[in-house]
Amino acid sequence: MSGNRDIEALIEMMARLPGLGPRSARRAVLQLVRKRELLLMPLADLLQQVAATVRECERCGNISSDPLCDICTSPKRLGHELCVVEDVADLWAMERGAAFKGRYHVLGGTLSALDSIGPEDLRIPALVQRVEDEGVTEVILALNATVDGQTTAHYIADELEGRVRLTSLAQGVPIGGELDYLDDGTISAALRARKEL
Amino acid sequence: MSGNRDIEALIEMMARLPGLGPRSARRAVLQLVRKRELLLMPLADLLQQVAATVRECERCGNISSDPLCDICTSPKRLGHELCVVEDVADLWAMERGAAFKGRYHVLGGTLSALDSIGPEDLRIPALVQRVEDEGVTEVILALNATVDGQTTAHYIADELEGRVRLTSLAQGVPIGGELDYLDDGTISAALRARKEL
Repeated sequence: MSGNRDIEALIEMMARLPGLGPRSARRAVLQLVRKRELLLMPLADLLQQVAATVRECERCGNISSDPLCDICTSPKRLGHELCVVEDVADLWAMERGAAFKGRYHVLGGTLSALDSIGPEDLRIPALVQRVEDEGVTEVILALNATVDGQTTAHYIADELEGRVRLTSLAQGVPIGGELDYLDDGTISAALRARKEL
Repeated sequence: MSGNRDIEALIEMMARLPGLGPRSARRAVLQLVRKRELLLMPLADLLQQVAATVRECERCGNISSDPLCDICTSPKRLGHELCVVEDVADLWAMERGAAFKGRYHVLGGTLSALDSIGPEDLRIPALVQRVEDEGVTEVILALNATVDGQTTAHYIADELEGRVRLTSLAQGVPIGGELDYLDDGTISAALRARKEL
């Protein structure tokens, strides 16, 4: 279409990013080429740098430039609270909330009989090890409220039972949520977990 | 949020691409980091290459790796038909149609009194020169059907009057278009330009 092989290859690759299709990838590439100094060259340099340096944190599975991530090495984070999440996107979501002061453990997925993903495919043995080694007193299971997420939470709870305080995120009405638009399951859960005023 | 400076910078830069906001940029970056070998590294290399080689075609303004673009140098394209478009996106749109066998001239914008863009800010003098030098017999004005686009078309028509055959794209009902969803202007234009069956 553009008559240029590199540009076509770039459009095709950008179209594989989530949120971009062939048409928006074309617009994005055109924008990049138009803003060569401001956008294209810095983005190319940054991607090279990230490709060269970014890896998984050896301890928690977060994204990091060093063997251990900033959260694992920060002296401000509480070592005795450990929040278990499915993947790095969930860790970022928790960090945006800025309410949790402990450290994380990224599982890298959920148990799934259909996809034959067992505990040893996730970082569950490493989690048990960390609980023993790091003097963890509370494990917060912040897994998604899906069937696979809850199955995984139950499995982890069984593994850690008796060794540590186990909690999970509260379920209920989201802040700003309207009852009329909520599903029945959420309303039932919020009712069961109702609080005294 | 991610606790990593490079990743944050990358998310911020990706969010400046059209079609991506902060949230989808975060998802895209996470996807890139997860698929390091398959996506991140090839994309970084490709961007470096495009940044190093891609420029404007000296003759028509298309995107190219060489001083002249593939369309300008192709012996299969008719030299006597010249299609004038606003920008490279429009050239690509015309090429997707695959109906035009001539060459292009990219103006790089439209005349605009508000933004004080005059003929010398666009490639209009170069267009007049090309019409004289290249034995052009027909200039097709494929400018957008906006006020600025049509003003620019009128200006170019005045400049080239008497030297060459001047045409513009037909206006009417789009293929697959339903009358009920068309604006009044398009229906009036299609009626005025009605054809004998």
